[in-house]
Amino acid sequence: MTAMNRRIVLASRPEGAPGPENFRLESVPVPVPASGEILIRNHWLSLDPYMRGRMSTTKSYADPHPLDAVMLGGTVGVVAASGHEGFAVGDTVLAFGGWQEYALVAGEALRMVHRIDPNLAPLQRYLGALGMPGMTAWYGLNRIMEPKAGETVVVSAASGAVGSVVGQLAKAAGCRVVGIAGGPEKCAYVTDELGFDACLDHKALRDARAFDVALAAAAPNGVDGCFENVGGLVFEGTLRRMNAFGRVAVCGMIAGYNGEPVPLKDPTVILRSRLKVQGFIISENPADMLEAFKELARLHVEGRLRYRESIAEGLEAAPEAFFGLLQGRNFGKQLVRLT
Amino acid sequence: MTAMNRRIVLASRPEGAPGPENFRLESVPVPVPASGEILIRNHWLSLDPYMRGRMSTTKSYADPHPLDAVMLGGTVGVVAASGHEGFAVGDTVLAFGGWQEYALVAGEALRMVHRIDPNLAPLQRYLGALGMPGMTAWYGLNRIMEPKAGETVVVSAASGAVGSVVGQLAKAAGCRVVGIAGGPEKCAYVTDELGFDACLDHKALRDARAFDVALAAAAPNGVDGCFENVGGLVFEGTLRRMNAFGRVAVCGMIAGYNGEPVPLKDPTVILRSRLKVQGFIISENPADMLEAFKELARLHVEGRLRYRESIAEGLEAAPEAFFGLLQGRNFGKQLVRLT
Repeated sequence: MTAMNRRIVLASRPEGAPGPENFRLESVPVPVPASGEILIRNHWLSLDPYMRGRMSTTKSYADPHPLDAVMLGGTVGVVAASGHEGFAVGDTVLAFGGWQEYALVAGEALRMVHRIDPNLAPLQRYLGALGMPGMTAWYGLNRIMEPKAGETVVVSAASGAVGSVVGQLAKAAGCRVVGIAGGPEKCAYVTDELGFDACLDHKALRDARAFDVALAAAAPNGVDGCFENVGGLVFEGTLRRMNAFGRVAVCGMIAGYNGEPVPLKDPTVILRSRLKVQGFIISENPADMLEAFKELARLHVEGRLRYRESIAEGLEAAPEAFFGLLQGRNFGKQLVRLT
Repeated sequence: MTAMNRRIVLASRPEGAPGPENFRLESVPVPVPASGEILIRNHWLSLDPYMRGRMSTTKSYADPHPLDAVMLGGTVGVVAASGHEGFAVGDTVLAFGGWQEYALVAGEALRMVHRIDPNLAPLQRYLGALGMPGMTAWYGLNRIMEPKAGETVVVSAASGAVGSVVGQLAKAAGCRVVGIAGGPEKCAYVTDELGFDACLDHKALRDARAFDVALAAAAPNGVDGCFENVGGLVFEGTLRRMNAFGRVAVCGMIAGYNGEPVPLKDPTVILRSRLKVQGFIISENPADMLEAFKELARLHVEGRLRYRESIAEGLEAAPEAFFGLLQGRNFGKQLVRLT
């Protein structure tokens, strides 16, 4: 009997919020690697907001995802068969294996496959605090926000895979850290477990004035650094509270991912407060990624890097978990366990 | 007979566009400097867009201008009487003498009075290409946009005091330079006299699509640096055309100065194109001002710094000239000749 590989492909492009009709589950024979190729058994799949952008044809930093191709995604797995001298069967690897149970990797794409140490941390951590999300947090904080001890930092999506690391790193740097998250449970986690100084529940603050009052109380000395994952009302309100020469790392604007972008009502704040507002993508900064990983691994080993994971079970659960991620229904890093 | 000092004070705060009712012309005796004070006869007054901001109570980088006080403004003049050992009668000085014919300067404010060389350039040039506007241009270009030879730079308000210098410096740095100005006469000046590679007439491009088409033609390789003086449609359109890792120096957003700010419809462009968008004020960077002045003075002496001036005659003409500046009716640096 031929072993089968289950995979999810992009069936159509969403208008607005994506739905089940945009994905298709397929079953095909597991491929056999030729010379120079490897076959990876994927154990963990990472779900991330950037995937929403790729589903559309809007101009962005990457080409749109092709229709009928396997959805892209970061994975951790184990080499199941190898035709490449650099990889042995049994190697644990971080890769872009996509939404599928087995990935055949060949040619240029092999440069994105990295052996990882399965003894340092649970495998899925390489998709979260020790992976792209953690390195993203490190880069935005250290290379763009550059906070000094005593400064105040605001982090949106504070309980998420990226935001939770930003806040913990900022606390370690001696900052006052204010998180923004959706709902009392997430906020309690942000302050009580992650150690942020305060957390605003944006679901309880539906207009600009309420946000301003709450942020003024949480950040009495103003805001010097902002790590932005969300955009919209929360972003605008944080900008209003920023001190002169504040720095804003723009990592995501998930509020506008499913339709019309959310306008920035008053861009003159950039001039009035002499802000630096900078967008970035971690994968474009490979030299910094290594430095980031080392610091994150050190904090992990010292037991100083807290994290939380939402785990969906099985490939078929990936689309629903992805919809939840876009709506903030996840709590911490969203993963799919594939085995 | 007592010599009189004519001066213009802020009589009331404008709602929307300022008008004559917001100013009041007064005549008071010329003051006599006490020990440690100096009296300056103002020869030239600079009119600048930032003055509009000070007339309102909106939170900004500076406190609102007090009512019934002399309107602030940069001036060039000659010391008429001195009770301060650092200044002699006859010294030519750059100062913040305000909208008046004589200025008494004392105490801390003396730190803002600088002796200048009346032989290097016509006096009013110290309020334009060799003054704050020129140094503003230099700083935004060299400290924020940091353009490399071969890159494309866009400059709004390109025929103005700041924009004209930005473009000339960028050309000297080997860039392709695209100006944006209001009307065919200004555009012809920008290309034919200032040497920009192209200039878009924003008055002839009233919607976003027309702007996009025109900018795509003028900047076929995209835009790497933007010096923003205006905001609104022009700013948004320039951001859309920017290449990855583009840099935006936000110097002014005059489009929103007279009322509600003009929204930035799609702030996600900052992330998609990994832009750095930074606001700045030249007076906060004194160390760079000296370096800027040296380079501008060198270009001036070499005859490589072109400029244009709109001169209003007499103090009483200042308000009307200021209204014109806010509407783009000036052509080049707006000055008032006070003697």
